[in-house]
Amino acid sequence: MEKILALNALSWLDRNPQLMVIVQKYGGTSVGSFDRIRNVAQRVKALHDEGHSVAVVVSAMSGVTDKLIAMAHEMSPNPSERELDVLVSTGEQQSIALLAMALQESGVPALSITGRQAGVRTTGSHTRARIDSLDGAQTRDLLEQGNVLIVAGFQGVNANGHIQTLGRGGSDLSAIAIASSLHADVCQILTDVDGVYTADPRVVPDARKLPEISYDELLELASVGTKVMQSRSVEFAKKFGVKFEVRSSLNNNPGTIVTEEHPNMESVVIRGVSIERSQARVTITSIPDQPGMSAKILNALAAGEINIDMIVSNIASDGLARHSFTMHTSDLGRAQAALQPVVSELSPDARVETEAGIGKLSVVGIGMRSHSGVAAQMFQALGDEGINIGMISTSEIKISVTVPEAKIEDAARAVHASFNLDKAPM
Amino acid sequence: MEKILALNALSWLDRNPQLMVIVQKYGGTSVGSFDRIRNVAQRVKALHDEGHSVAVVVSAMSGVTDKLIAMAHEMSPNPSERELDVLVSTGEQQSIALLAMALQESGVPALSITGRQAGVRTTGSHTRARIDSLDGAQTRDLLEQGNVLIVAGFQGVNANGHIQTLGRGGSDLSAIAIASSLHADVCQILTDVDGVYTADPRVVPDARKLPEISYDELLELASVGTKVMQSRSVEFAKKFGVKFEVRSSLNNNPGTIVTEEHPNMESVVIRGVSIERSQARVTITSIPDQPGMSAKILNALAAGEINIDMIVSNIASDGLARHSFTMHTSDLGRAQAALQPVVSELSPDARVETEAGIGKLSVVGIGMRSHSGVAAQMFQALGDEGINIGMISTSEIKISVTVPEAKIEDAARAVHASFNLDKAPM
Repeated sequence: MEKILALNALSWLDRNPQLMVIVQKYGGTSVGSFDRIRNVAQRVKALHDEGHSVAVVVSAMSGVTDKLIAMAHEMSPNPSERELDVLVSTGEQQSIALLAMALQESGVPALSITGRQAGVRTTGSHTRARIDSLDGAQTRDLLEQGNVLIVAGFQGVNANGHIQTLGRGGSDLSAIAIASSLHADVCQILTDVDGVYTADPRVVPDARKLPEISYDELLELASVGTKVMQSRSVEFAKKFGVKFEVRSSLNNNPGTIVTEEHPNMESVVIRGVSIERSQARVTITSIPDQPGMSAKILNALAAGEINIDMIVSNIASDGLARHSFTMHTSDLGRAQAALQPVVSELSPDARVETEAGIGKLSVVGIGMRSHSGVAAQMFQALGDEGINIGMISTSEIKISVTVPEAKIEDAARAVHASFNLDKAPM
Repeated sequence: MEKILALNALSWLDRNPQLMVIVQKYGGTSVGSFDRIRNVAQRVKALHDEGHSVAVVVSAMSGVTDKLIAMAHEMSPNPSERELDVLVSTGEQQSIALLAMALQESGVPALSITGRQAGVRTTGSHTRARIDSLDGAQTRDLLEQGNVLIVAGFQGVNANGHIQTLGRGGSDLSAIAIASSLHADVCQILTDVDGVYTADPRVVPDARKLPEISYDELLELASVGTKVMQSRSVEFAKKFGVKFEVRSSLNNNPGTIVTEEHPNMESVVIRGVSIERSQARVTITSIPDQPGMSAKILNALAAGEINIDMIVSNIASDGLARHSFTMHTSDLGRAQAALQPVVSELSPDARVETEAGIGKLSVVGIGMRSHSGVAAQMFQALGDEGINIGMISTSEIKISVTVPEAKIEDAARAVHASFNLDKAPM
């Protein structure tokens, strides 16, 4: 990948500098029917007709992947992941051919290529492989010859030539990798959301679409429930410096550009507010304040494959430690089972307490680094609404608190209003 | 291919010489449902459990290819053949994964591979490519590691890495090519017929399954309507000396072995009888007996893309030539249209006469080369039945005659009985 990035982005396509190399990615919903495929073809044709070089990454038609997985389960209750990859990757291979046909039908010289043909080399486990490298040589040649390329997302081949799929959000990852290898001027992730908002508009009616957000902010928002994209696609884009835009496949409105942070961004203290529901808290009390106690507890939870989120720990007045964790409510039973044997080892007095019905509210913004008083303003807004704060955790660009789940929407609206997120910054 | 064949067939798999390398091919009907796939898995497992090394070539589940083609036509009335190949090849990729899963479910270490992974390199046009070469190195490695290999038939990739399909009967071709590259001891084409019969059992009730037939005999039978396999698969097998067996996927009865001819085969004069219906005859009369006349006529038919079969030509008592051709009845109208302008150029007296309602009866056997009187015996049998013979054409191992279509079944039974084909030769 590095090797490819070392090339000069402007040099490989020798033509009018106003014309661009554009990578677009359309998800399963956007190609979910023959009519929608034709609609995508018209959008792509418009770019081609303007003279741009276009590579389009597509997912399987919505529903197809699930149908293929159901077929696998007809054969085996626990089908091998290697064979699942062989089977499921046919879904994208079908969409690329159909989209290429639709484009050709409207007079566009389109050519479909599989992940392998696009040079996507993978590594790691089947059904959740990582992109190891991307050889864009053939892709560039085919683009230079004037073709619109239709690339199967979500797939590649490993060093042994076996087909692998990239797991959830894999087509986004494919698109960003291909944009990187092509030094694309524009990478657009076309989806069924309009862009990234200051908050979920279903919860906060005056939420505002952000024109721009930094990778880190989107990563923090993604980690707290704003599921615009899988984190690893954003991380990949950050690593390789691929600026991309999240926009709607249903209209031509500008979306949100996700990019490296730049000094102007810091003038905004808070970029957005995010909520997570169905959280639970587990607290272990009366832990002897000795080294190694926390590790024992966390190891037990890891062995039980329980994802924990916030971790808060302190010493009570009796000199004994308390550890609290949050997790999804659905993990609570398994967490208790995993912790019980460990806790009695820690001390005869140690106890496990649990609480469900918790929500998590986070504010995210790189401006926090240079602005003080953000936490105070957030807590004030919640206090004014009479909302009690439970646990608190912070990172450099995020503050998260737990509140009663019943109050989570009120909390989001209060904080959103307090930071004036409905108004575009100066 | 030659390079691979130069290896010693016994050397590459180092183990008990009683164990064999077996290639099996199952068609779309044999894998047409989940239950049938499980049935195939059980048959393959039995071979694996006996210790043999097994590679299985499969077609798409029956109906899947047609469904994919229908999807293509939703996108374009005339979809590009390159994209059709990308789309249609997913059918085989799905069957290989499903069969591999079914085998794994019964404890067999199965591994599916696409045509590309099997090293099938193609050349020529999309949707009807030819196999150019086959690199069996990876296939052999995977077999040596103890895997049962499930290979997608009908597909390969060309020198540019683009997916190509092999056209009708392509999976048979894949199986024979893979058997060749693996120096397989056994190559079985599992199908919905039991083997090759002395005649169509629906027409000749006492038709007998042949234990053995030569490539050339099967080719001649195929060219006259016995559609056990596409000719090019048989030609490919002949070229590379791959002995194969046509047998049923529904039972374990021995089928028919197709092989190089050997001296014992010649003791049988006639191997089988074949019929074709819906034939038509076109005769051009009063052609000046000059050089170049026949070429003009044949060029006109070729330009009209009309496949002609038998060609008979002679000089009438008036010193003018007559040319007769047979063709399928459905081509008759187009043939007349193509010939009309040419015929009036030939001579003002030349005329086109046509006749439909014709059947063609052929007897095939390499024994003909060393036996005389075959034609006489065939004509006698037909004469005894009161069946009139129209055109006659012969090759080294075949005699074909036209008879009224209404009499074609009687004719087949009479000739079959005359040559005692219901009885196994001594």
